[in-house]
Amino acid sequence: MTLNQNKTPMNRTSVKAARLESSIGNTAKVSGWVRTRRDSKAGFSFIEINDGSCQGNIQIIAPGELANYEDDIKRLTAGCSITAVGEIKESGGKGQATEILASEIVIHGWADPETYPLQKKRHSMEKLREWAHLRPRTNTFGAVARVRNSITNSIHQFFQEDGFLYVNTPVITASDCEGAGEMFQVTTMDMEHIAKQQIEKLNYKFDFFDKPSFLTVSGQLEAETYACSLGKVYTFGPTFRAENSNTSRHLAEFWMVEPEVAFNELTDNMDLAEAFLKRMFADALKNCGDDMQFFNDRIDPDKALISNLESIIGSEFVRLPYTEAVEILENCGQKFEYPVDWGTDLQSEHERFLTEQHFKKPVILFDYPRSIKPFYMYCNDDEKTVRAMDVLVPGVGEIIGGSQREHRLDVLEGRMKEQELDIEEYWWYTDLRKYGTVPHAGFGLGLERAVQFATSMSNIRDVIPFPRTPGNADF
Amino acid sequence: MTLNQNKTPMNRTSVKAARLESSIGNTAKVSGWVRTRRDSKAGFSFIEINDGSCQGNIQIIAPGELANYEDDIKRLTAGCSITAVGEIKESGGKGQATEILASEIVIHGWADPETYPLQKKRHSMEKLREWAHLRPRTNTFGAVARVRNSITNSIHQFFQEDGFLYVNTPVITASDCEGAGEMFQVTTMDMEHIAKQQIEKLNYKFDFFDKPSFLTVSGQLEAETYACSLGKVYTFGPTFRAENSNTSRHLAEFWMVEPEVAFNELTDNMDLAEAFLKRMFADALKNCGDDMQFFNDRIDPDKALISNLESIIGSEFVRLPYTEAVEILENCGQKFEYPVDWGTDLQSEHERFLTEQHFKKPVILFDYPRSIKPFYMYCNDDEKTVRAMDVLVPGVGEIIGGSQREHRLDVLEGRMKEQELDIEEYWWYTDLRKYGTVPHAGFGLGLERAVQFATSMSNIRDVIPFPRTPGNADF
Repeated sequence: MTLNQNKTPMNRTSVKAARLESSIGNTAKVSGWVRTRRDSKAGFSFIEINDGSCQGNIQIIAPGELANYEDDIKRLTAGCSITAVGEIKESGGKGQATEILASEIVIHGWADPETYPLQKKRHSMEKLREWAHLRPRTNTFGAVARVRNSITNSIHQFFQEDGFLYVNTPVITASDCEGAGEMFQVTTMDMEHIAKQQIEKLNYKFDFFDKPSFLTVSGQLEAETYACSLGKVYTFGPTFRAENSNTSRHLAEFWMVEPEVAFNELTDNMDLAEAFLKRMFADALKNCGDDMQFFNDRIDPDKALISNLESIIGSEFVRLPYTEAVEILENCGQKFEYPVDWGTDLQSEHERFLTEQHFKKPVILFDYPRSIKPFYMYCNDDEKTVRAMDVLVPGVGEIIGGSQREHRLDVLEGRMKEQELDIEEYWWYTDLRKYGTVPHAGFGLGLERAVQFATSMSNIRDVIPFPRTPGNADF
Repeated sequence: MTLNQNKTPMNRTSVKAARLESSIGNTAKVSGWVRTRRDSKAGFSFIEINDGSCQGNIQIIAPGELANYEDDIKRLTAGCSITAVGEIKESGGKGQATEILASEIVIHGWADPETYPLQKKRHSMEKLREWAHLRPRTNTFGAVARVRNSITNSIHQFFQEDGFLYVNTPVITASDCEGAGEMFQVTTMDMEHIAKQQIEKLNYKFDFFDKPSFLTVSGQLEAETYACSLGKVYTFGPTFRAENSNTSRHLAEFWMVEPEVAFNELTDNMDLAEAFLKRMFADALKNCGDDMQFFNDRIDPDKALISNLESIIGSEFVRLPYTEAVEILENCGQKFEYPVDWGTDLQSEHERFLTEQHFKKPVILFDYPRSIKPFYMYCNDDEKTVRAMDVLVPGVGEIIGGSQREHRLDVLEGRMKEQELDIEEYWWYTDLRKYGTVPHAGFGLGLERAVQFATSMSNIRDVIPFPRTPGNADF
C-alpha cells in the first residue's frame, strides 16, 4: 500500500472530465473510490471508480502486468480508494464513452468487505441516515449533494445577477419575533449547576448576552433594515424551529433564502418569486442532467419528475386571491377532510387540490385574511385582507411564503396592538417606518423543500447532509 | 404624500445605472433615500439620492414647476425616501457624469430632522453600532455591505468554477470536537423551571435532542466526510465561539468558509489558499472600485489599502517552515515582548514581524510542532511536526489556518490517545480512515477577518451587519 500519491506529479483529472469523448487520447491521473471490480479470464480487471464529480463512474482497465496486480489490485472491493494513471481510450462498453487503460494504480485505502457498511445490497433510507458520514458515497446521496449544490448556486447567481446584496442576518438573537415557544434557547450558563441549586429567578447577567437569547426563526426583520437602506438584499442561512414534528417535511435546522426589496409591491414580489423558482429548476436540469435523470427513473414513483419540472418552467403561474380560492373549493364538489371556511388557513389538501387537480400548475394565492397572518404584512383597503402570498406547487404544496410589508407606521402599530405585541421591543423595526419608509416586499423559500421538490426525495432528512430532528443531533 | 408608486408603471433604474454616461437621454424612474437637498435661488432644487446600488449618489434637479415643489420637495431632508421620474442628462457638476431632470417626484416617507439619528454630523463607530438598523444608510456601511457581498460572491464563484460542491454542515451538534468550554449550549428545556427545582442530575430526555447539544465551532470534521465521498467540497456558514473576548478581532458569531479536498496534500492546500485569497481581493478591487477608493482615502490611516492589496495579488507568497521562522526570529535582533521558543505558538508580534518587516508580503508558515496542534493534522516523519499551515498577511496576521489531515488510522488513533480524546466518540470520523481512506487537506478562512483586511475597517463589529459579542445580541 503506497500512500504518497505525489510520486506521479501530474494534475488530477476528474471522472467527469475523463468521461468526455474529447478526452480520448489524453494521459490522465484519476482518483476515486472503487464501486465494482470484475476480473476477466484473460488476466486483467475492470475497476469502476467514482469521485463525486458526476453520477457516472469511469472504468479503469488494470492489465495483469501491473506490478501490484496479483497482490493488491485483485483484492480491491467496493469503497477502496485508488489513483490510476493511464491513457483515456474509447470504450467498447455501453453507457460510457471512455475508459482508462492503467499504466499505474496506487491504492490509498482498503475497505474491509466484512465490515464496510455500503455493500452492493440496497439499504433502507432509515439505515443510511445512521451512516450519514458514508451515505454521500451512494449514487442517491451523491446526486442529492450535486443537485442541492446546483440549487444553492442558482440562488446566489439569480440574485447577484440582478444586483442584490447578500446580507448575513444573525443566527443568535435576543429579539423574539415570532413566539419563543418554538425557539431554541442559547446559553453559556452551566445547566447542571443551575439544576443543582434552587434559584428563584435566573440572573441573566451570568449568561453570555446578559439576557435570554435564541436561535433565529427568520432573518426577515433584519433583512428589512438592509433593504430599507440598500434596496435589494437577500439572506440565506440556517434557521431553526424547535417544533416536536417528526414528519417527512420538518427539520429543526434548515436553510432559508429570504429576498427583500425596497420599492417592490406584491405584484413585483410575485414576479420575483416566479422567475426565481423557474431559474432554480432550469439550472438543475441543465447542470445536473444525469442526476436528474437518475431521480426521474429511480426515485420518482411516477417517473415524471423531469416532465413536471419542465412544465413548471414553461408555465405561467396562476395568481389567485384567497377569496376566489375559497369559492373554487366550496363549489368544486370535492369532499375534504377539513372544512373550507373564509377566514381560516387552507389545509394542505385544499392547496393540493388547487395546484394538482384544478389548475394543474403552480398557483400563487394572495390577499389572505388579516386575522391569520403576522403583523408585518401590508393591510389592504378592504380592512379584511393583507398582501400575503403563498406559492403552491403540485406534489409539495406551499414552497414559498411572502408578503408586501406594512410600511405605514400608524397601520403597523395598530396591527401590533391588535396582536398584543410589545411595540417598544420592536423599536428598531418601527424606526424603519419613521425614517424614510418605503413600500417593500419579500418572501422566504426553505432550501430543503426546494431540493425535495427538485429531486422527488420523499423525506426531507435525506436532502440535507446531517438532519436535525427531535432526538437527532449526531455528527 | 402619495404611497402608490405604481401610478408610474415603469421599471426602476438603479442609481448605479443612472450614473452611467451611456444612460444619457433615457427617461428613468429612480427610487432612493435623500442624502442632501440644496435650493437654488433660481427657483429649483438639487436633491442627491442614494439607493445602495453604489457608493455614488444621483443628483435630481427638481424644477419649481412641480406640483408638490413648495409644499413637499422644499421640506425634503436627509433620510426621506422618494421616487423621481425624469430624463437623464449630462451633468455640469464635478464627480458625476449624469443628473436627472425630474418631471415627477413622489415622496414615500419623511425623516424628521429633529429625531432622525443620521444627520450630516459624523457619528462615532460605537454610536453607529447602537443604530445597526440604520447604519447601512451611511457611506461607510453601505461600502462595507457591498465589499462583503463581493467577497462572499467570490468565495462561491471561486469554488464553483473549480468543481467544488457547497455542503451545509450542521450548526447544532451533539459532537463536541474542540472542547465544550468555548461552546454555546442549545436547549428547549425551561431554564427558569430548572432553576426553581433542585435537581441532582439533569435528564436530557426532556431536551430536544435527548442529549446536550451545542453550536458548532467548525464544520471541518463533517466536511471531511463529504470530501471523502465526493472529492472537493466547501462549507460556508455561521460558526460560534463563546469566548469572553471583547476585542476588535473577535465575534461570538461569525461566518467561516472551509474547503476540504480529497487527494490534496499540504502543497496543494497552499496553492489553493493562495489562489483563493488573491481572487477575493482582485474581485473586490474590480467590482467595488468606488467603495475600495473610499476605504483607501477615508478609512485606511496610511491611504495604502489599494496598493497593499494589489501588491498581495501580484506577489508570490513566501512558504516557510515553522522551524526556519523560529531561526529568523531568534537571529533578527528585534526585541519581542514574548520569547521565541521552538515548540510554542508564535505570538501576533512574531507573525507580524515576519510578514510586515522581514518579508514584506504574505507568508505561509507550515510544519508546526505537533504538540501545539489538534489531533487531526498529518504527522510528519520527523515525529516532531505536523502538516499544519497558517497564512499570514501584513496588517492582520493570520487570516487562514489549515492542514493536511491525518488519514492513517493507526497514527490518528495514536494522536487521539496522546490528547486524551475518547476515540469512541469519533467513530464516524475514524470510519473515514477505515474505509477507503485518502490523503486530504483543507483550511478555514474567517469571512469577517477577510472583510476587515479588504476594507481596513479597524473593528470586526463593523464588518458584519449585527455583531454578537459579550452582552450584545440585540436586533
